[in-house]
Amino acid sequence: MFELKGYRQPVLVSSIDGVGTKLKIADAMDRHDTVGQDLVNHCVNDILTCGAEPLFLLDYIAMGKLSPDKVESVVKGMSSACKESNCALIGGETAEMPGLYAIGDYDLAACIIGVVEKENIIDGTSISAGDIAIGLASNGLHTNGYSLARKVLGDTPEAIRKFHPELGKTVGEALLETHICYLNRLKYSLALIKGMAHVTGGGLPGNVPRILPDSVTARFDSSKWDVPYIFKLIQEKGEVDVKEMYHVFNMGIGMVVFCSPENVSKIIEQVPGAKVIGDVIKQAGNSRVIIEQAGVISGGNT
Amino acid sequence: MFELKGYRQPVLVSSIDGVGTKLKIADAMDRHDTVGQDLVNHCVNDILTCGAEPLFLLDYIAMGKLSPDKVESVVKGMSSACKESNCALIGGETAEMPGLYAIGDYDLAACIIGVVEKENIIDGTSISAGDIAIGLASNGLHTNGYSLARKVLGDTPEAIRKFHPELGKTVGEALLETHICYLNRLKYSLALIKGMAHVTGGGLPGNVPRILPDSVTARFDSSKWDVPYIFKLIQEKGEVDVKEMYHVFNMGIGMVVFCSPENVSKIIEQVPGAKVIGDVIKQAGNSRVIIEQAGVISGGNT
Repeated sequence: MFELKGYRQPVLVSSIDGVGTKLKIADAMDRHDTVGQDLVNHCVNDILTCGAEPLFLLDYIAMGKLSPDKVESVVKGMSSACKESNCALIGGETAEMPGLYAIGDYDLAACIIGVVEKENIIDGTSISAGDIAIGLASNGLHTNGYSLARKVLGDTPEAIRKFHPELGKTVGEALLETHICYLNRLKYSLALIKGMAHVTGGGLPGNVPRILPDSVTARFDSSKWDVPYIFKLIQEKGEVDVKEMYHVFNMGIGMVVFCSPENVSKIIEQVPGAKVIGDVIKQAGNSRVIIEQAGVISGGNT
Repeated sequence: MFELKGYRQPVLVSSIDGVGTKLKIADAMDRHDTVGQDLVNHCVNDILTCGAEPLFLLDYIAMGKLSPDKVESVVKGMSSACKESNCALIGGETAEMPGLYAIGDYDLAACIIGVVEKENIIDGTSISAGDIAIGLASNGLHTNGYSLARKVLGDTPEAIRKFHPELGKTVGEALLETHICYLNRLKYSLALIKGMAHVTGGGLPGNVPRILPDSVTARFDSSKWDVPYIFKLIQEKGEVDVKEMYHVFNMGIGMVVFCSPENVSKIIEQVPGAKVIGDVIKQAGNSRVIIEQAGVISGGNT
């Protein structure tokens, strides 16, 4: 139970999600706390895009046969991530489902509830041509694109536990990098932000159009940010078309923030690691998102 | 997003749950709408025990390969159950997770958020010796005990699609009976209720003690209600001890309501199908729950 105190016009914002087949990588690396963190951070970012702060989270863990060690490890990860975001881990369900999950396998989902004052809702409606796109770096795949990554790189312990000199770590470690939570970086700048997109499944072309008004296009210049090496590895080893890469992965940008030009320097100053990565133009043809340099990828067509 | 309007001291009540391996029965019967209803009704009942009315629900459906027909059927069931309970089906996540789920298999969870005015919270603290237990009938297993039921009765189409004269239907149909939602039956009587237990996994001995004050024991007389035939079938066919039956299954009582003696007749009058099934006594030994007639089963020991 959670008493909602001190709000004038509270609007509840919620999201439910899992971590996809990143679980298979966690399994091959036999490390289960980071997927707990991933899940919480993913959820926190999702509701942050509306300007909401987290209130509480509930988790669902399902497995074929209860493995107390794994559950403890996952919950430890969730718990530490919740603490970072001042979110109460209020409850959960651990389900033993013989016959549905293979021995050792488990699935993981969480539902987050947050709140925002009605007048402070961020929804992108005021974004207009001339506005600026600020990007916050990701540190890898976060929680999306693992089916393709596993297909290309494999997901057995043998395949992913080898040290990779250019990554500076094993492939498994790079794939398990924890989904970055942007709440604490962005929370003092929310009043300056017109719209925000969490770059999850579908990449920039899949997520940015959701918050853009009909009349505009977001134009990104991919030379403005570094693409983490893990994406280059997947692209080369799997001979994946660059266009597909941008449609499946975040390609190095975990969160995009739109603001008017006069607020850019304030946001850059307040938000560690934020940089200008594009702008907003009048709608150009059918494309809602253009990614220049990377072969002019366009997406989110109307 | 959900604007919370018109409450003085709103307390949010939430629950997350799945439907366990009832999914395996749904699969064998190739019927997927009722598990959607089960899930919603289970969640609504869970928060009802605090006196909360539902606001909104989010669902999580995970499968190895997306089956639009199954998803549509599940969502149709959830949607109709949400409508019955005046609960908004506000969002969800459908995850395709190759390698985790076998082809055709899926898992299903939902998170419900409800609200209750602080002064109207029902929490059982005022329950005292002399109070009365009123039971609301279940129509079968609801969503608990399916691992044992499947072990005894099987879960293949061949095993469960045969007509069973004493059930008046097939075993599969009896096992798929939809979890009853008690909200609409009980909502006008909430002010008369001191405490309420949703009889899920663990049965009466597992769920009733949670809401009882330390000093009392709930004493049920199992001759006061009918045990649906499906339970008798499981008990006989599996040679399951009656004590275990009461610890795994609801055995015909889906919800228990505690009230003072002077409110019994009002509740019986207002709530269709409600009947007196026991009372509250000073704590008797270590037992928090005694079930008479059924071999004096006690449980929830302190």
